[in-house]
Amino acid sequence: MTNRPEHYLLTPGPLTTSMRVKEAMLTDWGSWDEDFQALTRQMRAGVCKAAGVDDSYTCVPLQGSGTFAVEAAISTLVGRTGKLLVLINGAYGERIVKICTCAGIAYDTLTTPETQAASAEQVDEILHNDPNITHVAIVQCETSIGIMNKTEEIAQTVKAHNRRLIIDAMSAFGVIQLDPVKVPYDAIIASANKCLEGVPGAGFVVVKTDALKASKGNCPSLSLDLVDQWEYMEKTGQWRFTPPTHVISAFIQALDEYEAEGGAKARLARYTLNKDTLVAEMRAAGFQTLLPDEDLSPIIVTFLAPDEDAYEFKAFYQAVKERGFLIYPGKMTEVESFRIGCIGHFDHTIMREAVTAIQGGLRAIGVTNFSAGQLNSHAG
Amino acid sequence: MTNRPEHYLLTPGPLTTSMRVKEAMLTDWGSWDEDFQALTRQMRAGVCKAAGVDDSYTCVPLQGSGTFAVEAAISTLVGRTGKLLVLINGAYGERIVKICTCAGIAYDTLTTPETQAASAEQVDEILHNDPNITHVAIVQCETSIGIMNKTEEIAQTVKAHNRRLIIDAMSAFGVIQLDPVKVPYDAIIASANKCLEGVPGAGFVVVKTDALKASKGNCPSLSLDLVDQWEYMEKTGQWRFTPPTHVISAFIQALDEYEAEGGAKARLARYTLNKDTLVAEMRAAGFQTLLPDEDLSPIIVTFLAPDEDAYEFKAFYQAVKERGFLIYPGKMTEVESFRIGCIGHFDHTIMREAVTAIQGGLRAIGVTNFSAGQLNSHAG
Repeated sequence: MTNRPEHYLLTPGPLTTSMRVKEAMLTDWGSWDEDFQALTRQMRAGVCKAAGVDDSYTCVPLQGSGTFAVEAAISTLVGRTGKLLVLINGAYGERIVKICTCAGIAYDTLTTPETQAASAEQVDEILHNDPNITHVAIVQCETSIGIMNKTEEIAQTVKAHNRRLIIDAMSAFGVIQLDPVKVPYDAIIASANKCLEGVPGAGFVVVKTDALKASKGNCPSLSLDLVDQWEYMEKTGQWRFTPPTHVISAFIQALDEYEAEGGAKARLARYTLNKDTLVAEMRAAGFQTLLPDEDLSPIIVTFLAPDEDAYEFKAFYQAVKERGFLIYPGKMTEVESFRIGCIGHFDHTIMREAVTAIQGGLRAIGVTNFSAGQLNSHAG
Repeated sequence: MTNRPEHYLLTPGPLTTSMRVKEAMLTDWGSWDEDFQALTRQMRAGVCKAAGVDDSYTCVPLQGSGTFAVEAAISTLVGRTGKLLVLINGAYGERIVKICTCAGIAYDTLTTPETQAASAEQVDEILHNDPNITHVAIVQCETSIGIMNKTEEIAQTVKAHNRRLIIDAMSAFGVIQLDPVKVPYDAIIASANKCLEGVPGAGFVVVKTDALKASKGNCPSLSLDLVDQWEYMEKTGQWRFTPPTHVISAFIQALDEYEAEGGAKARLARYTLNKDTLVAEMRAAGFQTLLPDEDLSPIIVTFLAPDEDAYEFKAFYQAVKERGFLIYPGKMTEVESFRIGCIGHFDHTIMREAVTAIQGGLRAIGVTNFSAGQLNSHAG
C-alpha cells in the first residue's frame, strides 16, 4: 500500500482507492468502441462473480450514484402495480421511502430504532397481514450508525411468503457476502465506490433475469429504466446513454485488485482487522462505541463524542484532517457522535495512525482531560 | 497539445481530453469535505459564466449522463401539470419524447426531416392553436446528423407566446453561445464531457431560479429531482447523493483550460478550423457532406459513405482505428453515412492526420477507385 495519499478517507465512501485504480482513468475511451464494450462485459462478469450468483442473474450497471441504482431497481421491479415493505432503521431505509413517495409506488414501513435491526418475526407478521405486499426492501448494512441488519433470516421469511426481496447492499457488497441460495433475492444493489474500491460515478443492480424481463414498462423514468438499459446493452454491447468511461475503467482495475487480494474473504479479513484495531485503540484512548461488539460492522463504526465543552465536531474534523485523515460526522439525532470508516485501500497500520491523529486532533482543540467515564453518561 | 493519445476520439462525446484533465482524477476527494465543496462551487460558477447568465439563473449539477440531466429538467420543470412541445429532427428530440412517455408528461411534437430545422413560423402556429402547451423543448445541435437548429428565432416565438423554453444544448454548450437575453430560456442542459472537454459522469442544468422554485414537488423521481438537488446543495454545500468526485475534479481542470484558451470564442474558432480543415480535405479526397455548407456545424459532420461494394462500415472503422482515430457511425436511416466529430482536445493539424487515416483506412479495406461522382448518387 504505497503512494500515500494526502488524506485517507475514513468515510462510508467515496473512499481511498489505490493509485493504480486512479491511473486507470488516464485514458479516454470511445463509448461506442469494442475496447470499451469489452470493459463493460468484464465489469458485469466481475460483479456477478463478486455477488456469487449463477446465470439466472444478470448485472445491469447504471450511471450516477448508488441511490440512482436503488431507485432504478425499485421503480423498475416494484413499479406502480406492486407494493413495497421498507425496513427502516436509518437514513438509507428512509431514502427508499422517499423514492416510493416521489414515484407514486405503494409502500408500507417497518421502523425499528437506529440501534436495532428488524426481526424476521416482525416481517413475518406484516407479510401475513398484508397480501398486497409484493416486495420487501432491506438495507444490508445501515451506515447511518453502522449496524448490520438481519438480511439472511428476513430473506427466508420473505421467501416463505412467496414475496420478493430487494437488498440495498451498497456499503457491504463484495465483503459481507450474501449467498443467493441462503438469502434468496430478486435484486441486490451496490456501487463501484464502496468495498470494491473503485471511484464514484456508477452503480449496479444484480437482478434475476426473469424478474427483470417481467418488469418491462414498469419504470416511470427513462434514465432509470433497468429493463431498457439491460435490453440495449445485451443487444448492442453498449450503454444506452454516455457511460462514465473513466469510472468504468477504474472499476475494472479495482475488480482486478479485488480478485488479486483474494476476493471477499481476504477483503473482509483486512476490513475486520481495520475495525478491530480501530475499536481496540479507540477504547484504549478512552472512546466508546455506540453499539455493542456483536452489532459492530467492519464497514463503519460510530463513536460517542467526548462530553466536554471544548469538543465541537467541525474543529475536531479539521484538526484530524490536518493530520492526514478525513473522518465522518455522526447521523444520530439523540446523541452526539462521529463515524470512522474501515473500508478503502489501507490496512490496520494506517488505522493505528488514524487513532493517533484522532487523539492529536482532540488535544489540538483543547479536549485534554477526556476519559471513558465521561462518555458513559451518553450511553443511556 | 502534447501527450498524444493512443486514439483520438472523433465522436460527439466522450471525446479526447487533455492529460491534465485526466491527471486531475489522481486524487480521492471526500465528498463531505470543504475542499470538495469548494470544487462544486467553482464548477457551478464556471458553468454559469460559460452560459453567460446573470444571477437570476443557477447551475444544478447532476450525476449521470447528459440524458439524466435532460430528463431531470423536463420532469422537474414541466412535471405532470404542464405540456411540452418537442421539436424533433433526430435521435435527441425523439429521446425527449421517450422521457415524456415514461414519466407520463403530456406532450405534442413538431417533426421535421433530419436534414431540416423547424421554423419559428411552424412553432408559432402550434403555440397559437394549443394554449395548453406550457413549455417547448429544442435540441440546439442535433448530432444525429450534426444540424444546428434555429434556437434563437424559436426562443423569440416561445417568448412572444409567453411559454417557456428548455434547450438541450448538450453538444454545443460553451462553444455556440446562446445569450439568455436574445434567446430567453428557462433551462439549458449540457454535460461535462462535450465542448467543455471534461470527462463523462456528470451533467448540469442552468435554470432560472424562480422557475426552479416554482417546480417543487413536480418530479416523479427522487434521483432526478432538480429542486431537491438544488435545495440540498444550497443548504449544505454538498451533493444529496455521492457525487462523481473524480469527474468533478477533472471538470474543474477542464473549465480552467477553457478559460485559459479564451472561452467560447477561442474554442469555437478552434473547432471551426477543425471542421473547415476536415470538410476541405475530405472533399479533396472525394467525400461529400450530407448537409450544405450553411447547415454544417463545427461539432460533428456527416459524410456520405462511398458507394462501393468493398465498403463496409465496421471494417472501415477498424482500419481507421488502427491508424489512431475513432470515428462514429451514421445515424441516418435513408442513406449510408459516417460521422466525424470536430470537438475535443486537438487542433486542425490532428484533423489533417485524421483525413489521411481515413484515406488509408479506405485503401486498406479495398476501396481504391472511389470518387466524388459515385457519392453523388446518394445525394438525392
